[in-house]
Amino acid sequence: MRFEVTILGSSSATPIYNRNPTAQILNVNERLYLIDCGEGTQQQMLRFDIKASHIDHIFISHLHGDHYLGLVGLLSSLHLNGRKKPLYLFGPAPLKEIIDLQLKYSETVLQYPLQFTATDADKVETLVVNDDVTVQTIPLDHRIPCTGFLFREKKRLRKLIKEEIERLNIPIPLYTSIKKGANYTAPDGTVYSNDSLSIDSAAPRTYCYCSDTLPVEKYYPQITNADLLYHEATFLNAMLDRAKETHHTTSLQAGQIALNNQAKKLLIGHFSARYKVLDELLEEARSVFPDTELAIEGKTFAI
Amino acid sequence: MRFEVTILGSSSATPIYNRNPTAQILNVNERLYLIDCGEGTQQQMLRFDIKASHIDHIFISHLHGDHYLGLVGLLSSLHLNGRKKPLYLFGPAPLKEIIDLQLKYSETVLQYPLQFTATDADKVETLVVNDDVTVQTIPLDHRIPCTGFLFREKKRLRKLIKEEIERLNIPIPLYTSIKKGANYTAPDGTVYSNDSLSIDSAAPRTYCYCSDTLPVEKYYPQITNADLLYHEATFLNAMLDRAKETHHTTSLQAGQIALNNQAKKLLIGHFSARYKVLDELLEEARSVFPDTELAIEGKTFAI
Repeated sequence: MRFEVTILGSSSATPIYNRNPTAQILNVNERLYLIDCGEGTQQQMLRFDIKASHIDHIFISHLHGDHYLGLVGLLSSLHLNGRKKPLYLFGPAPLKEIIDLQLKYSETVLQYPLQFTATDADKVETLVVNDDVTVQTIPLDHRIPCTGFLFREKKRLRKLIKEEIERLNIPIPLYTSIKKGANYTAPDGTVYSNDSLSIDSAAPRTYCYCSDTLPVEKYYPQITNADLLYHEATFLNAMLDRAKETHHTTSLQAGQIALNNQAKKLLIGHFSARYKVLDELLEEARSVFPDTELAIEGKTFAI
Repeated sequence: MRFEVTILGSSSATPIYNRNPTAQILNVNERLYLIDCGEGTQQQMLRFDIKASHIDHIFISHLHGDHYLGLVGLLSSLHLNGRKKPLYLFGPAPLKEIIDLQLKYSETVLQYPLQFTATDADKVETLVVNDDVTVQTIPLDHRIPCTGFLFREKKRLRKLIKEEIERLNIPIPLYTSIKKGANYTAPDGTVYSNDSLSIDSAAPRTYCYCSDTLPVEKYYPQITNADLLYHEATFLNAMLDRAKETHHTTSLQAGQIALNNQAKKLLIGHFSARYKVLDELLEEARSVFPDTELAIEGKTFAI
């Protein structure tokens, strides 16, 4: 099953040097989940040939402009391009007020249902449960209410042991129940235990998105053992004071968080405009956590 | 004196095919005037090396998203990049409410004065008068309140006839009064008429920006004799019914307006996303008004 993230924007605060404000597309089994939506996200989707019409869920971490100013334009384009199916939007409560005000003055009535759910940055909430994935908030510590998001694959059914199934000539209609853990009773009354007929599927993979936060312990339990941890790394550690003051994380700290919480892989982003070249940020994180990559526009990372 | 317009966006409604929503930069004597500010305008300015810090005046024609959704991001970036000098913003009254709401929830207090003036789409208003230019609104006829903008150079001082000034050995401190129309009285009492010492300067140039409108007579007197007329041309004339329904203009109509109102040159833009190639739009306008150009991203037109 496809489970991969494509970076649409990696810049903090202001767009610069071909870096766009934050946005990411998570593809889970060909369903697209948009995570944050900085200004120009629609243009980035055109550039990287991502079909906005395939997005059914949008998650906004917080209401700093570099994380949501592309949203009203995107909602409007979906409307103009004939969308009819519902769109599920999650974000801080005032986001709805902001959208409604802009739609009101443009006299736009969206032709599709926009189902808004307000997030609460003070507690963990489950936002989505479907056949592919569950999505939870990760309460973070930023200057204004902010949540990350934890995407966890749904546990897959057990895998049939093909040779055994064929040897016993088990009828196809029973496959699903065996995949779900049932034993098999043969016509002669012999019971075959599920363990002899199927094996456990791979452990569900997780993608953790930690946007704009001080590195604080409260969210570490949620991100433990992430298959891919995206963590903001706005500054080099030489700017630690500035990072603290603005409630951000340094690249070194991001590496330490990945290390201490047993991430399998780390992706850093949300780079300050002061860094024209990102090599130092990457090297700093890799000095403590070697399996680190830069969240660069247009790059896709399998999870 | 420099008087030229650079196109940052030419697309109507949705960004597409490398076309961005509407925005233009007018350079008058090295002062920059931003006209409309669709999503991604800041990125376009980076792309075309236009210094946002040199903008002191922003004009928003109306509150359809493709004309203003890049504004809050731009205001925020100017703030983050240390702007202190005032910024003058003109647009429909609710624009202020929209900006204030977004600044409130991002907990941003702009570090520079944002001087907002509400426009009234029901009457002609003079918005700016400075040493270089006067700016007036052009009330248009769109689905929601909408104004264009008329930029008229200030009348330059008269030009001295150098040979005559030198022959009479006129003192330099008197030059300015002669440029303003005064006669010169020589030490022997002879009076030299201003006409013999100076000639009239060139007629002030005008740039007319007509965004999103039905072609209706009420605004024609204001755009008469424009040195450069920008007029929207959203559709080909084959889509005349759709143009009427959505309160837009066809390319043929834009050409006719330029012809009937003695424009010196016509620039068409605000192209519907249905036109991947723009040749037909250009040919249609040129069929009635040959001196027509397409408003293409990155192109600069001297006025």
